[in-house]
Amino acid sequence: MQLVIAQSNFTVGAIDKNCQQIIADVEKSPENALVVFPELALTGYPPEDLLLRPDLYKRLDFALEQIAAISHGKAVVVGHPFQENGLIYNAASVYADGKLLARYFKQALPNYGVFDEKRYFAAGSHAVSFDYQGKRIGLLICEDLWDDQPIAHYDGLNIDVIVSLNASPFNLEKQLEREALIKKRAVNHSVAIVYANQVCGQDELVFDGASFVVNRSGELVCRLHQCQEDFAVLDFADAFTQTRIEVLADCEEAEIYQALVLATRDYVNKNGFKGAVLGLSGGIDSALTLAVAVDAIGAERVQAVMMPFKYTAQMSVEDAKAQAQAMNVEFDIVSIEPMFDAFMQALDPMFSGTQKDTTEENLQARSRGVILMALSNKKGRIVLTTGNKSEMAVGYCTLYGDMAGGFAVIKDVPKTMVYKLANYRNTLGKVIPERVITRPPSAELAPDQVDQDSLPPYDDLDAILEAYVENDLSIADIVSLGYDETIVRKVVRLVDINEYKRRQSAIGPKVTQRNFGKDRRYPITSGFGREH
Amino acid sequence: MQLVIAQSNFTVGAIDKNCQQIIADVEKSPENALVVFPELALTGYPPEDLLLRPDLYKRLDFALEQIAAISHGKAVVVGHPFQENGLIYNAASVYADGKLLARYFKQALPNYGVFDEKRYFAAGSHAVSFDYQGKRIGLLICEDLWDDQPIAHYDGLNIDVIVSLNASPFNLEKQLEREALIKKRAVNHSVAIVYANQVCGQDELVFDGASFVVNRSGELVCRLHQCQEDFAVLDFADAFTQTRIEVLADCEEAEIYQALVLATRDYVNKNGFKGAVLGLSGGIDSALTLAVAVDAIGAERVQAVMMPFKYTAQMSVEDAKAQAQAMNVEFDIVSIEPMFDAFMQALDPMFSGTQKDTTEENLQARSRGVILMALSNKKGRIVLTTGNKSEMAVGYCTLYGDMAGGFAVIKDVPKTMVYKLANYRNTLGKVIPERVITRPPSAELAPDQVDQDSLPPYDDLDAILEAYVENDLSIADIVSLGYDETIVRKVVRLVDINEYKRRQSAIGPKVTQRNFGKDRRYPITSGFGREH
Repeated sequence: MQLVIAQSNFTVGAIDKNCQQIIADVEKSPENALVVFPELALTGYPPEDLLLRPDLYKRLDFALEQIAAISHGKAVVVGHPFQENGLIYNAASVYADGKLLARYFKQALPNYGVFDEKRYFAAGSHAVSFDYQGKRIGLLICEDLWDDQPIAHYDGLNIDVIVSLNASPFNLEKQLEREALIKKRAVNHSVAIVYANQVCGQDELVFDGASFVVNRSGELVCRLHQCQEDFAVLDFADAFTQTRIEVLADCEEAEIYQALVLATRDYVNKNGFKGAVLGLSGGIDSALTLAVAVDAIGAERVQAVMMPFKYTAQMSVEDAKAQAQAMNVEFDIVSIEPMFDAFMQALDPMFSGTQKDTTEENLQARSRGVILMALSNKKGRIVLTTGNKSEMAVGYCTLYGDMAGGFAVIKDVPKTMVYKLANYRNTLGKVIPERVITRPPSAELAPDQVDQDSLPPYDDLDAILEAYVENDLSIADIVSLGYDETIVRKVVRLVDINEYKRRQSAIGPKVTQRNFGKDRRYPITSGFGREH
Repeated sequence: MQLVIAQSNFTVGAIDKNCQQIIADVEKSPENALVVFPELALTGYPPEDLLLRPDLYKRLDFALEQIAAISHGKAVVVGHPFQENGLIYNAASVYADGKLLARYFKQALPNYGVFDEKRYFAAGSHAVSFDYQGKRIGLLICEDLWDDQPIAHYDGLNIDVIVSLNASPFNLEKQLEREALIKKRAVNHSVAIVYANQVCGQDELVFDGASFVVNRSGELVCRLHQCQEDFAVLDFADAFTQTRIEVLADCEEAEIYQALVLATRDYVNKNGFKGAVLGLSGGIDSALTLAVAVDAIGAERVQAVMMPFKYTAQMSVEDAKAQAQAMNVEFDIVSIEPMFDAFMQALDPMFSGTQKDTTEENLQARSRGVILMALSNKKGRIVLTTGNKSEMAVGYCTLYGDMAGGFAVIKDVPKTMVYKLANYRNTLGKVIPERVITRPPSAELAPDQVDQDSLPPYDDLDAILEAYVENDLSIADIVSLGYDETIVRKVVRLVDINEYKRRQSAIGPKVTQRNFGKDRRYPITSGFGREH
């Protein structure tokens, strides 16, 4: 038997377009092949509340008919939502020679982290296998393999291959986790497993592909490209005989970087933007964001704008310009002094008797935000925001200022990782000036300001944030790790009181274990922090 | 037996504060009374991902010990999360004379609409009853009563009263629905039912109180105040004997208005703002928002700012001033001309060769947004945004412009209802100038602009939006209701492409069947609309 893994890039909701992609992939597959697509390939993943629309199912029926019709001389395993007796299932259907050969309903429905499958789906309850080309194939869908039960339903049924359809979102080192688990399942149940994953950026999720196959002895015999579309044809006799193993990204930085590029490219292109524009400050966050943007959609579609004010160092302007030139992007300089002065003058009567505070800093950031949005509106380019996860966590960012924009490229990247990614990107071609990486970070919103005036050193900050945000440790737990209690309390308080800012921020790609977004759903109004 | 319903206002996450409120309510209850609190009173509802923090349970244990300790001579029924064997339950515990008398776990876990209970809770599986003062009491929690099964578990157990703890969010006519259902359950199972509900605003949810009691014959014998804290002591012999029935709001407008007031008051106060500030344009949306703000937190804490531009009609300035005076709030006028001109001049080199478009309109709105945010920052007053549901649906609003702010008071109020609410508010005391209500609505962002230049008449728009957004009808379905296909396609397209704006909008109180927020979770990146 020949088996095809079609690791194509599908788009949520674009049923007709996805269907045409599926048909094209089937048509280029060899005769008599079993062609496998990922979980919910036909709707993309996750379709969210589109699943509640009756008209979705009419379109799906139409698409499935088309897929059935081209399945002559081949078998197609396609993931799609399926409605029956008022219930919706996360289904895998197998069509061969124009007919439905089998239909499986996902049994383990994830409803944690970024997942909400119990909002939509009813759980299937049993194994479904089918015979094709003399082989017996069992079906599973994604979470089914992370649970002990579903695969056990196939024990003793003489299954040759388990085909699993997946939409497994990326986070750091996720692929190693997937492969370790699937190898274990293969050995424990003595069955070969085909793992077909989605590859695309979808809002805050990145599906990193890297579909793979393990033999029943737990050996990896095939791995497709990570973060790229791919298409593999495999021979299966008693076991998968040949091997084709694409290498994984060789370090954390490479892994994250390629995920950011895929997420940004898909967000910009699938939402129909002509290009992207961003504020380039001479600091490391916007420098990294610019690099990702150019690698994602090409220099000719990217515009960088330096918006100096009286607190902007000359080296910031120089470094911004140097990077823009190195990356060959349109570069403009617009001073915000006239707008800032006009605002301050207008506000003067109402500010009488008050002191300078962060208001004036925010006003600088917001003047910049308005300029970028005007450029975006006029030119059809999306504004990319440049804030990192450490800033988003403690609210070291201005709502409607540097937070203004449609996609937050490094929103889930802690500051310490921003440095690593900048250095990594320079190993591929030096585009970020060294001084941007080595100078002390500053928002440049006040004279001689540096981040470390208001925040603990980033090494400490990121460690405390990981403990509090990702690992749910209490203040006492974190202090017991060796951090100063005053600092821990300050950081935790900042995280708590800035939920309102994060709620209005642009979405950005998840790369850590828990992002600010679907992964972490906190109330804005909460007394929990005040009672620490 | 005497039974107390303690309809107090609890705060999410404020376990210690809630615990002190519970203790105070128990202390003011008569001896030997059964004192009933709503669902998850101790954490507030919904605690969201706070439920995943181990330190939450330590604090809960401590609070429950305190409650047990003051239960001498009384019984307390309190709702709280409970962790056991690695599972979390939505629990109701009964303490009497210092001891735990019973503990019930919610069986029906809502995971649709605004609810995510399966993200956190394991389901209970059985009935729990206890005897107190010679009566037998059965326990249920909220969704349990909307399901047929849980109450049936009490059939044949000689239950005198079912006590149900609730956190049932408001939407229009929800109370009539609740009472109709509970009366039916009481009759069908021949049992009296006590329905204790939360009363508070919590982010985008409003819990409208109106706790009530029905006799086993299905008669309403008690109803507490709607949208206010309340406390009722009831005698129960063989049936509830006395009656105390507070009237409900006597029209849709009154019902919605009081919900908006409660939501706004709780959001502003529980988040510690000194007051509120909003842009008063002379139009009906900001006029209504101002009225709600003043009714919620008092005129002395509210500031209205009129920010005219060359397209602002003189009557807009006059009407804004008249309302501000009628409502006795601080009123300022700040022209945005200098800021607008400064931006346009700075952008001029980059705008060369382009035409005037909505960019310039957005620039006006964003200049206003920056001013309001500066006032907010300087004075500690939250900016209230003034956009209605119809605008939010079709994106007739400017991100970081009129959408800038912390709480969107009328975000879930369709424009046609905005008019009704304005007229209703004027019946309580005339504060909104008549001309604000009668003149054709205009954003005043271009010369002689009126909303109906770009949008269908609001009667049609709101009907189409309800069909598409709240009832999930397809374009064909909506056209078959009698609307013009071109208009329907335009409206649906606008709803689809503006998901990114709504995702960055301030939260606001849900008052309809389905709000933009937790109720409607759409992907931003989606091909669904493009393939209509």
